[in-house]
Amino acid sequence: MLNFTVGPVMSSDAVRAIGAEQVPYFRTAEFSELMLENESLIKKFAHATDDSRAVFMTCSGSGGMECAIMNCLSKKDKALVVNGGSFGERFVELLKLHEIPFTEIKLEPGKALKPEHLSAYEGKGYTTFLLQKHETSTGVHYDINLVSDFCKRNGCFLIVDAVSTFLCDPFDMSTLNVGVMITGSQKALACSPGIAIMVLAPLALKRIENIKCNCQYLDLKLALKNQERGQTPWTPAVSVLRQINVRLKEIDAAGGDKVEIEHVACMANYFRNKIKEHNLPFEIISESLSNAVTPLHPTTQSANEIFLKIKDEYGIWICPNGGEMKDTVFRVGHIGYLTESDYDCLINAFLDLRDKKFI
Amino acid sequence: MLNFTVGPVMSSDAVRAIGAEQVPYFRTAEFSELMLENESLIKKFAHATDDSRAVFMTCSGSGGMECAIMNCLSKKDKALVVNGGSFGERFVELLKLHEIPFTEIKLEPGKALKPEHLSAYEGKGYTTFLLQKHETSTGVHYDINLVSDFCKRNGCFLIVDAVSTFLCDPFDMSTLNVGVMITGSQKALACSPGIAIMVLAPLALKRIENIKCNCQYLDLKLALKNQERGQTPWTPAVSVLRQINVRLKEIDAAGGDKVEIEHVACMANYFRNKIKEHNLPFEIISESLSNAVTPLHPTTQSANEIFLKIKDEYGIWICPNGGEMKDTVFRVGHIGYLTESDYDCLINAFLDLRDKKFI
Repeated sequence: MLNFTVGPVMSSDAVRAIGAEQVPYFRTAEFSELMLENESLIKKFAHATDDSRAVFMTCSGSGGMECAIMNCLSKKDKALVVNGGSFGERFVELLKLHEIPFTEIKLEPGKALKPEHLSAYEGKGYTTFLLQKHETSTGVHYDINLVSDFCKRNGCFLIVDAVSTFLCDPFDMSTLNVGVMITGSQKALACSPGIAIMVLAPLALKRIENIKCNCQYLDLKLALKNQERGQTPWTPAVSVLRQINVRLKEIDAAGGDKVEIEHVACMANYFRNKIKEHNLPFEIISESLSNAVTPLHPTTQSANEIFLKIKDEYGIWICPNGGEMKDTVFRVGHIGYLTESDYDCLINAFLDLRDKKFI
Repeated sequence: MLNFTVGPVMSSDAVRAIGAEQVPYFRTAEFSELMLENESLIKKFAHATDDSRAVFMTCSGSGGMECAIMNCLSKKDKALVVNGGSFGERFVELLKLHEIPFTEIKLEPGKALKPEHLSAYEGKGYTTFLLQKHETSTGVHYDINLVSDFCKRNGCFLIVDAVSTFLCDPFDMSTLNVGVMITGSQKALACSPGIAIMVLAPLALKRIENIKCNCQYLDLKLALKNQERGQTPWTPAVSVLRQINVRLKEIDAAGGDKVEIEHVACMANYFRNKIKEHNLPFEIISESLSNAVTPLHPTTQSANEIFLKIKDEYGIWICPNGGEMKDTVFRVGHIGYLTESDYDCLINAFLDLRDKKFI
């Protein structure tokens, strides 16, 4: 099957070869070394400062989002959160559950974040800001510079869910003064799912030190303490961490995050041009696209029916949407081990469906 | 490398082949079917009642332990917990963190649980009991019948950490009236680490319904709701769940849990007999052994030095102990894809070390 979803995605042969190996015992100097190398390379690609840290949690990206909130925020905070889709909604649910006072900036699906959305909150004592850099559910890539500037002016601690944009769109954690960046193993890192990665700036480390986390499993104090020697408090997804190591070194050898981002951008542009070239009956629904994914509204057929048809008859996964957008939106991802010829297969399937009057 | 630790352990070729495959997209009917099959087979091997449920959480076994406490216990409970090693200690830490009133039954490392340890707590209003069926750190297999009988007499809800004993020693969840059983993907299931499995009896389901879980990621209400259709609330460790499916079906085809337990017992007996036969300078430190592991005190050399020597010079992992037992105890596991000839390799390495006067 060809996989154009936004995770899990296709993996390189080297990454898959790790999946086939026996999983090694991990309380060893050898595994510690690998984990410290992972930390160093992730920090490099996130453009984190030297005194930042990175930890690898065995959980989903959503687990990483909750982990950031439980370890870095308290009831004394006053949070601003952008809610423009199901991941923004998840931040809102988490702030409610953990009783963090917050104000929600609700955006319509597909809409970009603009200066006027923030102006009302200037100088109002907000202490923290939570943002999906890329709202994966609708494919909207928010203006992180706008949010970063707001945070700098207002002294806000900035938590960025970069799960599906990391290594897809430019991101400089130190210039943007981001406190926490979250990503996952199964997005542009193109490994198996199971690991959330958290990069923590010194401001985050200070908050973590002073806040009591009410979940031992997600306690970043314990994760940070163990990661000092390249270890984890609990048995981690060892195989995924080894895949991440291979992949980070692959990216580094090929020229780093910049080159990887260019590759994802190339795939996105190739696909988007083909859609236009063939005048396929799909409308791009996002005002501000990430390189990671193209969100499409099919104008002649249910999105979910297209997803099922392409899966069952062409052996290709595109990414369905859930909830209210189930029939109106599907997405095509540009992350993972994909080539132009893979996109040609997908485009040919669409053309075939048009010939058959299915779309 | 040959791996005799207690997890991650050696996997079968079929399980490793899954690790080499591209990870499929999972919001599909195909993946749902696999997950429902996993639930059904796990319930079968745990001897759970038909109206029990099983869920698969992307976290470590320790995450599963915390999950059980956060979802099934409240401040109104009065818990008894056996603490005879580092996993018992973890239950104690978790009860403290989540403010569940409790009494600790502290046992010396290696010591069995006996009726006199429980007699003082009869009729004292305890509502719940937490037990490692097998305290992995010291290799003590506690008398679950003793605890089950106590719980039946006293109306206690019973939470069993079976992480390292499931499929190694007989366990009948319904006869024992166990409320929650926890295990992990990387023990006798011999898959990659990353998944904790929770089997939940109707009594547990009722508790979960009435208790607010203060962590969304570990919320069993959400996990149960999604598992009704074979799904998970967050992206799970898909690859590990597919490995678990292959492995559960392997076990089922070979005759089920009873046959698997016999195999592990055979491996344990083979190794233990060889140790005696060759009069190796190791003392078994547990009063009550599980088939899963043999905990050994070497009388002529530091346990950690033996672990390092065997790793670096013979390409074999045995399982080191941490903390106070670092130099006094190592363990040899009997779970995973191991044969008698693998144990012959290990025994030959020990014999060679004795010839060289290292032990």
